[in-house]
Amino acid sequence: MAELYYGVAYYDEYMPEDRLEKDIEMMLAAGINVVRIAESTWSTLEPAEGTYNFYHIDRVLDAMHAAEIAVIIGTPTYAIPAWLAKKHPEVMVTTVQGTQKYGPRQIMDIVNPVFRRYAENIIRVLMAHVCQHPAVIGYQLDNETKHYDNTGHWMQSGFIESLKVRYPDISQFNHDFGLDYWSNRIDDWADFPPVESTINASLACAFSQYQREQVTAYLAWQGELVREYCKPGQFITHNFDFEWRGYSYGVQPRVDHFAAARALTVAGVDIYHPTQDHLTGREIAFGGAITRGIKQGANYFVLETQAQGFPEWTPYPGQLRLQAFSHIAQGARMVSYWHWHSIHNSFETYWKGLLSHDFAPNPTWREACTIGKDFAQYGEQLSGLSARHDVAILISNEAMDALNHFPPADGKTNVWNDIFRRFHDALYDNNVGVDIINDVDAQCDKYKVMIIPALYSAPDGLLSRIHAWVERGGRAVISFKSGFSDENVKVRSTPQPGGLRDVCGVTYNQFTRPDSLQVDASAIGLPDTEAELWAELLTPDPETEVMTRYHHPAWGQYAAVTRAHYGKGQAMYVGFLPEKAWLYGLFSQFTADLRLSSQAADASFPVIVRRLYQADGQERVFIFNYSPTPQNLPAPVNGVQVLQQGRVSRGTPLILAPWDTVIIASDLEQEEA
Amino acid sequence: MAELYYGVAYYDEYMPEDRLEKDIEMMLAAGINVVRIAESTWSTLEPAEGTYNFYHIDRVLDAMHAAEIAVIIGTPTYAIPAWLAKKHPEVMVTTVQGTQKYGPRQIMDIVNPVFRRYAENIIRVLMAHVCQHPAVIGYQLDNETKHYDNTGHWMQSGFIESLKVRYPDISQFNHDFGLDYWSNRIDDWADFPPVESTINASLACAFSQYQREQVTAYLAWQGELVREYCKPGQFITHNFDFEWRGYSYGVQPRVDHFAAARALTVAGVDIYHPTQDHLTGREIAFGGAITRGIKQGANYFVLETQAQGFPEWTPYPGQLRLQAFSHIAQGARMVSYWHWHSIHNSFETYWKGLLSHDFAPNPTWREACTIGKDFAQYGEQLSGLSARHDVAILISNEAMDALNHFPPADGKTNVWNDIFRRFHDALYDNNVGVDIINDVDAQCDKYKVMIIPALYSAPDGLLSRIHAWVERGGRAVISFKSGFSDENVKVRSTPQPGGLRDVCGVTYNQFTRPDSLQVDASAIGLPDTEAELWAELLTPDPETEVMTRYHHPAWGQYAAVTRAHYGKGQAMYVGFLPEKAWLYGLFSQFTADLRLSSQAADASFPVIVRRLYQADGQERVFIFNYSPTPQNLPAPVNGVQVLQQGRVSRGTPLILAPWDTVIIASDLEQEEA
Amino acid sequence: MAELYYGVAYYDEYMPEDRLEKDIEMMLAAGINVVRIAESTWSTLEPAEGTYNFYHIDRVLDAMHAAEIAVIIGTPTYAIPAWLAKKHPEVMVTTVQGTQKYGPRQIMDIVNPVFRRYAENIIRVLMAHVCQHPAVIGYQLDNETKHYDNTGHWMQSGFIESLKVRYPDISQFNHDFGLDYWSNRIDDWADFPPVESTINASLACAFSQYQREQVTAYLAWQGELVREYCKPGQFITHNFDFEWRGYSYGVQPRVDHFAAARALTVAGVDIYHPTQDHLTGREIAFGGAITRGIKQGANYFVLETQAQGFPEWTPYPGQLRLQAFSHIAQGARMVSYWHWHSIHNSFETYWKGLLSHDFAPNPTWREACTIGKDFAQYGEQLSGLSARHDVAILISNEAMDALNHFPPADGKTNVWNDIFRRFHDALYDNNVGVDIINDVDAQCDKYKVMIIPALYSAPDGLLSRIHAWVERGGRAVISFKSGFSDENVKVRSTPQPGGLRDVCGVTYNQFTRPDSLQVDASAIGLPDTEAELWAELLTPDPETEVMTRYHHPAWGQYAAVTRAHYGKGQAMYVGFLPEKAWLYGLFSQFTADLRLSSQAADASFPVIVRRLYQADGQERVFIFNYSPTPQNLPAPVNGVQVLQQGRVSRGTPLILAPWDTVIIASDLEQEEA
Repeated sequence: MAELYYGVAYYDEYMPEDRLEKDIEMMLAAGINVVRIAESTWSTLEPAEGTYNFYHIDRVLDAMHAAEIAVIIGTPTYAIPAWLAKKHPEVMVTTVQGTQKYGPRQIMDIVNPVFRRYAENIIRVLMAHVCQHPAVIGYQLDNETKHYDNTGHWMQSGFIESLKVRYPDISQFNHDFGLDYWSNRIDDWADFPPVESTINASLACAFSQYQREQVTAYLAWQGELVREYCKPGQFITHNFDFEWRGYSYGVQPRVDHFAAARALTVAGVDIYHPTQDHLTGREIAFGGAITRGIKQGANYFVLETQAQGFPEWTPYPGQLRLQAFSHIAQGARMVSYWHWHSIHNSFETYWKGLLSHDFAPNPTWREACTIGKDFAQYGEQLSGLSARHDVAILISNEAMDALNHFPPADGKTNVWNDIFRRFHDALYDNNVGVDIINDVDAQCDKYKVMIIPALYSAPDGLLSRIHAWVERGGRAVISFKSGFSDENVKVRSTPQPGGLRDVCGVTYNQFTRPDSLQVDASAIGLPDTEAELWAELLTPDPETEVMTRYHHPAWGQYAAVTRAHYGKGQAMYVGFLPEKAWLYGLFSQFTADLRLSSQAADASFPVIVRRLYQADGQERVFIFNYSPTPQNLPAPVNGVQVLQQGRVSRGTPLILAPWDTVIIASDLEQEEA
Repeated sequence: MAELYYGVAYYDEYMPEDRLEKDIEMMLAAGINVVRIAESTWSTLEPAEGTYNFYHIDRVLDAMHAAEIAVIIGTPTYAIPAWLAKKHPEVMVTTVQGTQKYGPRQIMDIVNPVFRRYAENIIRVLMAHVCQHPAVIGYQLDNETKHYDNTGHWMQSGFIESLKVRYPDISQFNHDFGLDYWSNRIDDWADFPPVESTINASLACAFSQYQREQVTAYLAWQGELVREYCKPGQFITHNFDFEWRGYSYGVQPRVDHFAAARALTVAGVDIYHPTQDHLTGREIAFGGAITRGIKQGANYFVLETQAQGFPEWTPYPGQLRLQAFSHIAQGARMVSYWHWHSIHNSFETYWKGLLSHDFAPNPTWREACTIGKDFAQYGEQLSGLSARHDVAILISNEAMDALNHFPPADGKTNVWNDIFRRFHDALYDNNVGVDIINDVDAQCDKYKVMIIPALYSAPDGLLSRIHAWVERGGRAVISFKSGFSDENVKVRSTPQPGGLRDVCGVTYNQFTRPDSLQVDASAIGLPDTEAELWAELLTPDPETEVMTRYHHPAWGQYAAVTRAHYGKGQAMYVGFLPEKAWLYGLFSQFTADLRLSSQAADASFPVIVRRLYQADGQERVFIFNYSPTPQNLPAPVNGVQVLQQGRVSRGTPLILAPWDTVIIASDLEQEEA
Repeated sequence: MAELYYGVAYYDEYMPEDRLEKDIEMMLAAGINVVRIAESTWSTLEPAEGTYNFYHIDRVLDAMHAAEIAVIIGTPTYAIPAWLAKKHPEVMVTTVQGTQKYGPRQIMDIVNPVFRRYAENIIRVLMAHVCQHPAVIGYQLDNETKHYDNTGHWMQSGFIESLKVRYPDISQFNHDFGLDYWSNRIDDWADFPPVESTINASLACAFSQYQREQVTAYLAWQGELVREYCKPGQFITHNFDFEWRGYSYGVQPRVDHFAAARALTVAGVDIYHPTQDHLTGREIAFGGAITRGIKQGANYFVLETQAQGFPEWTPYPGQLRLQAFSHIAQGARMVSYWHWHSIHNSFETYWKGLLSHDFAPNPTWREACTIGKDFAQYGEQLSGLSARHDVAILISNEAMDALNHFPPADGKTNVWNDIFRRFHDALYDNNVGVDIINDVDAQCDKYKVMIIPALYSAPDGLLSRIHAWVERGGRAVISFKSGFSDENVKVRSTPQPGGLRDVCGVTYNQFTRPDSLQVDASAIGLPDTEAELWAELLTPDPETEVMTRYHHPAWGQYAAVTRAHYGKGQAMYVGFLPEKAWLYGLFSQFTADLRLSSQAADASFPVIVRRLYQADGQERVFIFNYSPTPQNLPAPVNGVQVLQQGRVSRGTPLILAPWDTVIIASDLEQEEA
């Protein structure tokens, strides 16, 4: 196995002409050492039911093996053949828009037994055929699997069965879900109405959670199938993705990444992001942190990211390198482009690969050649890296679902992710590295600070664990709307912030939407700011410190941010959504007395600094210039430049060219962890 | 019966825990003397077909009675149980979006016989059970009943039957509705196409009118059922509502309030409105005027209005009082909040009641306590109030429907209501109180001025009655688009304003959409202004006065506003939509020689003054400060301050605190009516 | 036959009262000499299946004949009777929104055999009845026929059959259409999935082309039916229309005008456009050029254009004349209004005719009287006019479809038409007249310059013909995205601009969306400008002239516009979308050494000059003032003013009043063609 993988997705099936030999030549020139194949090619592999055609797979496997390029085989199930949809229309997913028509990918009913039967067959046929091939290093289960907003028969009946099991007493179900409201009460499970038209947020969120569980189960089922054929050393991965806003924006609402990742031996992900003047590295950072987090900090694969991508993403010189090393600086062990060549027909014609449609050398491919060379040359120094962060962000699919059912403002976006990104980006922009977690347990004692954005729905147990963690000495930054409802999205009738009231030392029972609402932060030496999105009218306990107040004729008596001691720790409660830079200022105040290993440098965006560590403790400091203008900063450590190979001394000026990447192997005596 | 009712909607069914005793204690502290129950609780009351559960109703009735709090029982029919939808899917309403799925309320087919059978049963069961209970003072039929855009079988077939009756000669039907156009002619009733896809405005508007008639019939039917059980003294009411734009915006297009109110003994209504910096009282005013108007000026119930409401409505200190007394100042006899407590699950979690989810005392509840105390203390002085306005606004569901089929501009809103509000608000903001009427009859001789906004569709008879009213001495302010089409939305081929041409002394056959179109008002001493929405190119008769002209290279020869004498009266025709303050200036010019009892004071918004009268002629003058800044005005009368209890002398300064309310009981000798 | 036709659509069927005699009187006063009838009146003509009523048609034919007004009979098929939809629901068109409901016009399935049978019958019945009537001068087939987005059974099965014929080898089909992508491969025609949900642009565009072919076939079928009854001298026309954005905006995507026009003896069209301050003549120009082009430069009928139209179109004094003569100045032989009177019911009540709803004389009708008088008086001098343009624009439905499947930016509009209009309008505004063509053949040798906007999809043959045309001496202006894909919307894998690379002497394999991207045009003496919509990063061949470069840190090395010699001709390649005035500057540079007959004058918008020629070579120069301010220009020729009848001498000042029209019959010796 290579130290670092540099890869592409490759589709011999889609080629307008035979390109294999020439492509491999150009891949080798670019340092490509892994290709991902087959994941969308069911109709080529099984052109008619029970008829199989291994032409493309065989020739690619053989040719790659000959070129010493490793191959990842994807199960081909995320796009079904036309003959299957024709014979079994019931395998198409049903959503609130009705039963979907054949055409797009990712549009099947993953809980339908007929679909499962055909999917199992093609997976077994493919696995049996390829598993012994020496080029194959591992498998990708399906691709970007989600539940596809499935509201079909199997999904709904399964959901009702799960409720029956959970609630032997249907009255308890009605009570917990508040179904008496608007006459929605159900006294006989047989009367269960369609879930997709419910107006009950408790029911809708429970169904959403059940849908996510089916994604977890589906990947586990594929994983079991694949595992039957795996050779020792072959990995099983999956290509997770994120909430999509034309690029990877935030936490994926339709998959529980943490649960689903249990089916995998290596986490995989796709991360897409704006480039050109809008390249910031923020998506690479949060996406990497999540993907690292779902397998307990292990290295992960970036199975897809953009080469040329959309026309508005055509990279400026230097950006492809910057992007590749930014993934490495989050703990990635693979950077693989979607995809090798640009596709000549159909839908993603303008989602361009390393090569344009003409297959000719181009500036992006030429820059890739330098990356591939560096990966090969410095792989040993840049692999097996892990983070040592003492700041974590707690995320929750359930909180997201629940908050988005009651969005604080009229926005049409996934507002929970807007909040999550505000907190994440405030830290990222100021070089505070984070882990991302979805529960609080004993492992969390390594964190000094925990950010808890909008934990709207949470069971008592989680809130208790947060209390305990603070009591043991942690510092929690807890935002508005946290603790508000229980795991059934039933608003707590205890004083708010329900279930977090004690640790925060504050309470409220009124809130408002801010309308030019100023916040006075003079008490902590920060400038005044304006509340966005939401404002809770906080009344602190006597011993709680008021960090900021509202500046308003009606609400001036209320606190906006408070800080309370609890046990050996502290909790800062933030009653409104602050502007990003101001939020970092608040964080700095709250942690001023701590020395955070997460704080990689004093610099701030567009200079981004990451520190990672090899297994033997050697530190690698990555320094990026996310801007079109040269940047100048004092070297943060003594060490050796990995790519440019000169020595640097702490404090002497480092000059970064536009969109530049510098990596320093720190001298061992300078380690600070 | 109390002089003034101060109430809440109360749902024992929705409670996460047993709160009844504690709630009543807090209600009594707040002066609550009436609760409304049961109107959305069919599934709790009849958990399975034919099985009844009176637990919640009985315990609430008994406890309220013990506390001397009166109870209004709502028939539970506006939200149906899941078992009914499961057993009889046909009871769900069918609209242009198809047959609706179970989940939301107000989504049943109110003309479906099966639904009627089940609804009748539960109404009878409930009425039989509660009608003898001493706590019950009256009944609410259903809730915010509308036709729910019903285009189902029963609605369409009933509509066609009604046409057959109206048109024994189908050719006359084709002629009146203009169906030859685009080959839409129908020569056999059996060929009648779906109404929901018609492009014929005459047909669409006739159907819309038929739909409203079914709301009237449905409430009449419920009224008859309830009346069978009523005890003497128990009232029958209904909770009407208005066009909804996130709050009560204008005339309700889906209900003919005047016709539907015949089923009631007391008019009821819900009024919701913006608060905080956007609280103006305008919705309380027009909503009150309509609700007063539909029962001939009688006192009415505000069955629902907001306590804390949405987060953006959380009231500033003083606003809850201001709102409550503003309702009283329109003639309301009850102010009842939706609702007592905030709901912990489902859909309206953020439509907050007097209590927040924590049931604890909060600033809004505390302010309510002062209102309840004042209602109790001063109820005798503030009840039985009636208006003595001599200005009326004529509204019409049919004109609204027709105009909105041919909206003057591209707006997506109900533009008729925009026009109605412009005229209403111009008067409200300048303290001209109005009655709202939907026909012109002998009762109208009490009015000196009648405002007729966009009476786009009207039968000859109504237009004749307007002529006659002016001829007898009335002054009509008639806007653009009035008289344009007949009751079948067939444009009149007589000169425009069709059917109002004589009284207005003006005509036009061209019009335009204004595009920076200036209006020159120098002839009447008003500033120039700009036409909005629509502009008719008016040619006045020789004896007609031109009040304003357009200022434009192409349209400069045309009049924009004219004034004509007709019999003993006058008609001012307004050919465009004016800005609000300018419109009041125009109104003042037109009425300069009149002394209007409607003009309560010289003040203008944010100072709002209302004058009402008790049965014995005693005047109550309400003075409100709808602003966050103190206001200062000379006292308009000699009298005694009701709430603060000092004397005031006409002309001496009154100082109103932010959002303040002052009520003066005028000395009797100062009456001017 | 009249020299010039001045007409109206007339619907005796829609009249609220008998108006025929009075209408004809007013028509004669206005110089109306042709009416179009019957095209939407199936339900009046055949009120029940097999029952016919010729009442309206007969009386109108007789009365018009008596008044010497000619009549065009429209086949009534574009709106079907309710009884047909009731008896045969399958005649309603099925689209992606489902089977449409009866009500609107143009909503039937034109390939459904049942519909065809009924349509054939009513056409035959009508034709047999009217064809001998002496008033009838010709026929209009249907009206604004399109495929109505038909995705029904007959359309889809016909499409699949057409593919089977084209592709005996289904593998070739999969290859050409790239169906292996996302498992869309089809190995058995019986498995063909629904076309409407395909994500494959090649398939979607082929289907769109097939849909257009059915429009062509449908009109040909109607033409054959009508031809059976035609008397010698009677013409067959059709009322084509354009992409609609509230007015005629661009090329019609749903009809191949060039192919469909083969069924006709005279081309006909409707052209609607903004007026008042937004009247520019641009739509009259491009619409006229297309309609002229589809019948090889012959005169055409404007079968519909606006009289008063929408309220925002109510014409200013002078505009109706300006519009009428602008049509003549494009080669129209008829100007006919939609419609005579304004309709009193239904849907198009505010699409007003020459008369308003009151049938009374009005300013627009009075202006029409002057036009009719001039048409009659000067018809001999203004008829039989043809253009002699040496500049052509090449349009393509296939390129439009393909580009719009991959729109360069996120706009929701038909972006191909935006690009077409940019090029057209740049020339129009600067008085460069154009022909519009849809292929390049020997006829094109008359053109000195050809504009090729966004020829995204094109077969090799067309690209070869473009090469040959340039080689023979032509000058081509070729925009970005041209040549990019083949006729199957498969991106060419040859260097871009694929198939036009040789003639352009330039290549690229990267492009971007411009984001404040400046273009440096100093090399050609034009000001800097900003790229819109799209930017290709061009690398010129050594011998190719770089006219402009991008001014940008990353893209500064690339050309933005290039100019290459090829054979005896030249090609200018424009890599981005320029601003309109700048684009004309570029065009001027490229053609500076040519003397273009298309360049009618040096003036520019709002002064518009057109030159046309009678069969004997006599020139007519039309000069229009498209502005509310008087314009002054030197007379472009010696000659006689046709309307005002004085002589003018070249160079002496001509003064045009606001919205004025001047026509000069040039002295013969001054011809320059």
